[in-house]
Formats: sequence, structure tokens, C-alpha cells
Amino acid sequence: MTDYPKFAVIGGGSWATAIAKMLCVNLPQIAWYMRNEDAISHLKIHHHNPNYLSSVEFHVNKLKLTSDINEAVAYADYIIFAIPSAFLSGELEKMTVDLKDKVIFSAIKGIVPETSLIVGEHFHDTYDLDYDNIGVITGPCHAEEVALERLSYLTIACGDQHKAQIVANCLSGNYIKAKTSDDIIGTEYAAMLKNIYAIAAGIAHGLGYGDNFQSVLMSNGIREMKKFIKKVHKMKRNINDSAYLGDLLVTGYSVFSRNRMFGNMIGKGYTVKSAMMEMSMVAEGYYAAKSAWELNQTHGAKTPIIDAVHAILYEGKEAKKVFKKLTEKLD
Amino acid sequence: MTDYPKFAVIGGGSWATAIAKMLCVNLPQIAWYMRNEDAISHLKIHHHNPNYLSSVEFHVNKLKLTSDINEAVAYADYIIFAIPSAFLSGELEKMTVDLKDKVIFSAIKGIVPETSLIVGEHFHDTYDLDYDNIGVITGPCHAEEVALERLSYLTIACGDQHKAQIVANCLSGNYIKAKTSDDIIGTEYAAMLKNIYAIAAGIAHGLGYGDNFQSVLMSNGIREMKKFIKKVHKMKRNINDSAYLGDLLVTGYSVFSRNRMFGNMIGKGYTVKSAMMEMSMVAEGYYAAKSAWELNQTHGAKTPIIDAVHAILYEGKEAKKVFKKLTEKLD
Repeated sequence: MTDYPKFAVIGGGSWATAIAKMLCVNLPQIAWYMRNEDAISHLKIHHHNPNYLSSVEFHVNKLKLTSDINEAVAYADYIIFAIPSAFLSGELEKMTVDLKDKVIFSAIKGIVPETSLIVGEHFHDTYDLDYDNIGVITGPCHAEEVALERLSYLTIACGDQHKAQIVANCLSGNYIKAKTSDDIIGTEYAAMLKNIYAIAAGIAHGLGYGDNFQSVLMSNGIREMKKFIKKVHKMKRNINDSAYLGDLLVTGYSVFSRNRMFGNMIGKGYTVKSAMMEMSMVAEGYYAAKSAWELNQTHGAKTPIIDAVHAILYEGKEAKKVFKKLTEKLD
Repeated sequence: MTDYPKFAVIGGGSWATAIAKMLCVNLPQIAWYMRNEDAISHLKIHHHNPNYLSSVEFHVNKLKLTSDINEAVAYADYIIFAIPSAFLSGELEKMTVDLKDKVIFSAIKGIVPETSLIVGEHFHDTYDLDYDNIGVITGPCHAEEVALERLSYLTIACGDQHKAQIVANCLSGNYIKAKTSDDIIGTEYAAMLKNIYAIAAGIAHGLGYGDNFQSVLMSNGIREMKKFIKKVHKMKRNINDSAYLGDLLVTGYSVFSRNRMFGNMIGKGYTVKSAMMEMSMVAEGYYAAKSAWELNQTHGAKTPIIDAVHAILYEGKEAKKVFKKLTEKLD
């Protein structure tokens, strides 16, 4: 058997399932960790994940399925984390395997609530990993369309371009085009910030603003994102590349986005608490709004949209009034 | 009676009706020309345009309605053209009134088929009007949402910023925010090019591409638009301003856009001719694709999306094959 890169996918949700599907096109085997043992049993017998993207059939002989994260991590050279950011710390606490020689890729698109860091920074700071061994997998990409094998473009960012290319190659296929980038910080912040703008888009919709305003919001959103990321990590990047603008658009204009849905409920008058309960899950953008706002208190970028979402979600301000004021700041 | 700027609106369609509505908020009287005498009679009796935005009620005493374009033009200092670009030459041929002391604003968002010029250039070249007396009214703005009084942002571009401000003031209101710009060429090209991208978005949808691809298409579209406009008229502009990116998004993501609808039919397998017949009107982007492509033969900007739309609409190429190739050029 020829040598091939060993991958582990961490997570049992839709994005983890989509990534496992993509990898299985190119690799004879991958490890796949998920907490839910029932899902693993189901996958082994019925060849699909019972809870997410259940139309996707797997060759189970390609899957090293395990509910022991250490087993998956020990197996792999490349570990792709695709779990909600709120669960990351809990999973990492279970880990006993040394990460020193591993390459960690984040497909999380959120902030680690405990440290207010994006995932790459979290691994860098907490595990003393070099950015050459840290990467980001970013869209624009709804997992549901990967299941349908609809053409999608990914951007794979890593400090080490060779490793980015290996991951890109292993994910690419008939319906996946993956390109590489060296902007590991910027792409991950974009992936995280876009969820805040998706919440804003949802709030606007819930409040009754129309498509004309939505497009103004997105056009201001990408300008705001550019300023924010520039403060955090200044380098040459085209904010209109797919990994930034494309990712913002696919989320902001998606009626399926959980973040947009969450915002929509807030706009319609739900309290933050009841919107969360109604959704029975937390939208990534909820944490992102807090972290981005706090981070920006030192950076001082002009971010009226983030400020507005923060005011509504964390300062108890009324969405209608906050957005009325926000409309004066957009152009 | 105090002095107020005299406006004439040229056109009886939805955008002309929306503009008339906005002006009537701020002005005691406007002239409004439309060819259709039945529509004028209906408006006089029933206080609304029977054919477009018929929910909008007008104070008819504010309207100098006329089916004689010269009467409207003679009355006004500011003349706003809001008719399909394909009809402009025909209407201008009727004109006997001198335009020398008039200020001409285009709300047309298209190319004059006979000269392959955007409307501002057409007036500049054909009537020897100075760019200080030429302007553009641009969105992102669906007329339908103006009818519903949903918050919308306009950009008013003119060589003479004072005149831009006068027009902006006369259009602004509770639900309209209008800002000014000096990029008369760029905003008008953007308004024209976005229709080509909307056709492309429609073709992609018709061919079965999903939301992931759509966002990549738009993200490539705005980069392409930037390159194109830079070649035509280089100046400092932020392509992510609402007049450029916002206008692209509101059209590209709108299921109501006639250009997107036209593209969708092409993608689904209609011939260009049958799609046009089916729609019983011509999508502005159809002409725009030809002119933009031809113009770019001298400029040489990299415009794979415009090239693809041109190949399908004018070179008899098969949409499916052309888009397959196009996907290789996007990122």
C-alpha cells in the first residue's frame, strides 16, 4: 500500500460529515471521531450518519470510527476539528495524545468561548503549536450542498503552504475545488465574523427590512470585516476573495444559516434566551459577537454592525431602536 | 411660492414610478412623461399607475402628466430618464427642446444599443453635454420596495457635486437615504455590468448550481467588475460601496430580477430567442453583455464571466459547456 496522509475528522455534525465524505473520495482510510456512540453504530450498520446529511453513503471499510478522541488523534497526522466552538475545550480536555507532531486544521468557524480566541490562535497559544502546523478550512460552503455534490469552492489556509496543498488535494474532487492561502488568521476571522453579519441580516429581516437594505448591510459588512481583520492581522489580502466575501454572502443570504435564523427570531421580538431555547442550539455568531466586540475595544476599528449586534445580544438593547440608529451609520 | 428645482421624470415603468413617488415627497410639482396615454388617464382618475407599482397613490395635483416628451423637458431643469435603454434613442429623436441648460440624470442602468455607450456618455457625446450637467441615480434599489416604503439607499453621482446634492435632497425621505458621488462613469458602468452578472447568476441557477457556487460567482463578479471599471475610468473608488457591490448583490440575489430570470431560462435550456419571447421584454443585461464584451476587446481586462455570458448569448455556445469551463477560471 502506498503512503498516504492520515486524517482524523473530529465531530459528528453536518460539516464534519461533509468533510469525511470529501476525504473518502481521495483516501483509502480516515479516522472519524464522534461522541455519539449510537451514531457510530448506525453508521456501521446503515452506512450513513443518522443525524446529519443522512443521504450521504459511506464505504464503512474506509472509516476508522471511534468515540475515543485519543484513538483518532493518535492515528492521524492531520486532524480536522469540525465541532461547535463551544464544545472544543471540553473535547481537548479529554486529549492525552501529544499534538506536537500533528497538523491541526480548524473547520470550526467560531471563537473558543473560554479564551475568546479563534481556533488557530487557541491551539497556537494553548498547545504552543507553530502556525506552520495550524490551518483553516473555509468556505463558502454549506455542508448540505456537499451532500448533493454541488460544485463548491474551499480555501485551505496554513502557515506551511505545502501542508495546505496536501489538505487541498485530499479534499478536492469532481465537485470540490480547493485553493490554498497563507492568510490563516484573516480567513479564520472572516469565517467567524461572517456569522455576526448573518445574525445582523437575520435581525434586519425579522424587523421587516427588505432586500434593498440587506444588500446595503452586506456591502457595509464586508467593508467592516476588512477594517477589523486589518487591525488584527495586517497583510496583503483581497477581501473580495471567496474565503472572505463569498463566505459572507453564502451565510448572509442563506435562509438555512442558523445564525441568520437566530437573528431573525431576535428581530421578530424573541428574547435572546428564548431564541436560543427555540433553536435548541447556540449560533456560533452569538459568541463571536461578544469576542469580536471585546477584541475591538483595543483595536478600535469602526464596526457599527458588530456594535449593534453586541448591543442587542449582550446589552439588553431593543433591536428595533438599535437598527434604526445603525441605518444612519451605513451608506 | 418659494423656488424649487423643477424635475421631469421620463418613463412609465416601475422605476420611473418609484422615482416620481420619491420626488413627490419633497416637491410641490413634477412633470412626468409617459408614452402610454391610457396610463395617464388612469393615473388622473384613479391616482395610481395602472401598470407598475399600482399600490402607490399619487396626489395628482402635484403631477404635470404628459405624453409629450417636449412638454416635460421644457418644464424641467432636471430631467430623469428611467426608460429601458433600448427605447432611449427613439424617445430622444422626438425631442426638439434644447438640452443645453438642462441637467440630465440617468436612472437607466443599461447601455444604449445604437451607440454601445452608457447613458451618461451617450448624452455627453451626442448632445455635447458637460459631465457637470450629467448624472446617475443608482441603487441598490428594487422599485417594488420603494412602493412598500422599505428603507433603501441611493447613490447620486454627478460631475457637479452641488447638483448631485440637490437631486439627493429631492429624493431623500423617511425611507430613502441618498448619498452623492463624483464617480459618474464608474457607478453607471457598475449598474450596467451588474445585469450581466445577474444573467450569469440566473444561468448558474438554471443549470443546477447551488448557493455555494452562487457566492463564488458573486465574489468573482465584483472583482471582475472592479478590473473592468478601472480600465474604463481609473479613479479612487471603493468597489464594495453600496453603489457597486450592493447593487450587484440586490440584483444577483433577487429572484425578481428580470436579468436573473432571463439567465435562468437560458440555463434551463431555452434558446435566447424563446427566452426573450417568453419574457415579452428584453433584459437590459442582454445588450450590456454585448457592449461590455466589445468594449473590453480593446481594454483587455480579465472578464471570464462577461466572456461566458457573451459566448452563450451571442456566439451560440452551449450554456452547460461554457459554465463548466468558467468554473475552472473562478476561485
